[in-house]
Amino acid sequence: MVTEMLPVVLVHGGAGQIPKERSQMSTSGVCSAARSGYLVLQGGGSSMDAVVEAVTQLENNPSFNAGCGSVLNITGEVEMDAIVMDGKTLASGAVSAVRNIANPVQLARLVMEKTSHACLTAEGASKFARSMGVPEVPQESLITDYSRMRWKKNLVPDANPVECQMGKMGTVGAVAVDAEGNVACATSTGGMLNKMEGRVGDTPCIGSGGYADNLVGAVSTTGHGETIMKVTLARLILFHMEQGQSAEAASDLGLAYMKSRVGGIGGVVTVDPKGNWAPRFSSLQMAWAAAQNDTLHYGLYTGEHFTQAIDDPH
Amino acid sequence: MVTEMLPVVLVHGGAGQIPKERSQMSTSGVCSAARSGYLVLQGGGSSMDAVVEAVTQLENNPSFNAGCGSVLNITGEVEMDAIVMDGKTLASGAVSAVRNIANPVQLARLVMEKTSHACLTAEGASKFARSMGVPEVPQESLITDYSRMRWKKNLVPDANPVECQMGKMGTVGAVAVDAEGNVACATSTGGMLNKMEGRVGDTPCIGSGGYADNLVGAVSTTGHGETIMKVTLARLILFHMEQGQSAEAASDLGLAYMKSRVGGIGGVVTVDPKGNWAPRFSSLQMAWAAAQNDTLHYGLYTGEHFTQAIDDPH
Repeated sequence: MVTEMLPVVLVHGGAGQIPKERSQMSTSGVCSAARSGYLVLQGGGSSMDAVVEAVTQLENNPSFNAGCGSVLNITGEVEMDAIVMDGKTLASGAVSAVRNIANPVQLARLVMEKTSHACLTAEGASKFARSMGVPEVPQESLITDYSRMRWKKNLVPDANPVECQMGKMGTVGAVAVDAEGNVACATSTGGMLNKMEGRVGDTPCIGSGGYADNLVGAVSTTGHGETIMKVTLARLILFHMEQGQSAEAASDLGLAYMKSRVGGIGGVVTVDPKGNWAPRFSSLQMAWAAAQNDTLHYGLYTGEHFTQAIDDPH
Repeated sequence: MVTEMLPVVLVHGGAGQIPKERSQMSTSGVCSAARSGYLVLQGGGSSMDAVVEAVTQLENNPSFNAGCGSVLNITGEVEMDAIVMDGKTLASGAVSAVRNIANPVQLARLVMEKTSHACLTAEGASKFARSMGVPEVPQESLITDYSRMRWKKNLVPDANPVECQMGKMGTVGAVAVDAEGNVACATSTGGMLNKMEGRVGDTPCIGSGGYADNLVGAVSTTGHGETIMKVTLARLILFHMEQGQSAEAASDLGLAYMKSRVGGIGGVVTVDPKGNWAPRFSSLQMAWAAAQNDTLHYGLYTGEHFTQAIDDPH
């Protein structure tokens, strides 16, 4: 039973309301990322290897708000946040408000593995990236026409960036369990549309943007960062699992609490160490995909759950 | 009964091992901060007003690692982190890696009250400070001879800054409950001795450096930041309280878990909404002081608990 359940990887492309013309890109993006993460696991890679691979793909895909395709801050620039966490050691690495790199999730992993710290921010993160030989990329390479259009639209006095944010997918993320039962999570984002310079959201904040513990499970979150932080959503869901709730029930409890207590909507992907998994969201949509037992699962609207053989072309 | 228990304020000056010649300064510093916070509460101020007042005093006191007296990073500069959280709304404000301001805790409160965000970092935080009219101070005004001596000492190749950190008090913080039963927390720090540029520790990370919820209580933490983050210590203690543990028992459970699971030591100050309070630590010392019912309580070593009338000179 357990051998059929492991390994597994589950990714999300952000909670929100996706314009119809963009929904196909979102679905194929998360499916492709889940496939890549699964290939890593099948090749003997760790859950950490798998989540970083999946999130790297989503960062490189301009359809998502992370890496290339990030939303712009109020001054029209890209500042990105990312986190990884290893459920075996509870070690984590994060970067906040980092600029001019293609893959913040990979830099977050380097923070975890190559420093004694858990988070580096802004120019300090850039200096660390340079010291590790991470290539600096021009900001233009991270900005899409769509991002720039939405930034301009939200500079007008009566704009509502929070509402408009829901018109595009948010943060991306992944959770995985490898054949040894190790869990990991990774989350990456360009943050809030038209955010202030230096704004740090939930993503790089351990327990809010993600959490992973081999004894319980792993969660990656998406939604309105400031609201997720109020309830430390990832840690909250894992507390429910510690008390005996399933990954699915715990995720629903966490999201329901966030809605009733602070009026927030969002989404999560959750796994437990046995390989049970749940993509849950209180938003209208969340593009998600999972790969397990040579089967690809995916969906976009509440209740949607399609399956196909992992090697079928999408 | 409740009227005798409220209001209350409880402060800490960091967990660690304080050199004997500095212990008197630490004790008088936390006593003075608790008195000031209590005066605010007696004057009808909110718990948020009280914790910000108490932490401001500790930031201004060069004996503590926050504001003036902050430890220096690897390049010999001061970068500070701070957070506040309001238990009534679950709103929080934080700054990370901020430079050239005297009172990061006040800037964190401004982030909470004057922006739609929960955290601003580095240069973005500085720009916000300027826009709010917060005076810029020269870095030299934040650096003490003692800080500079310890920074130099830890530049030698075989230095152990983590161990040396324990030779000085860490992070400062406060929790309070006002007459209406509203809880709040505030935490402020110069961070880790000889940390990398841009290093962000537990302090500005909600759930790690502090958490406050009117339905449960409030916690401010101190210790090795990277270890506190692994267990999201403040949120963990409040989960124990939600399950019926007292402030004291929950604090001990959280600290014991941090020690057994990830080998970390630290300290916390915890209150519940009824006004029960507990300063607990697994380090050798933690300077703490509380003010309640016109009585000042304080201590430094495990088991120490002195009391005196609040208006007796210390």
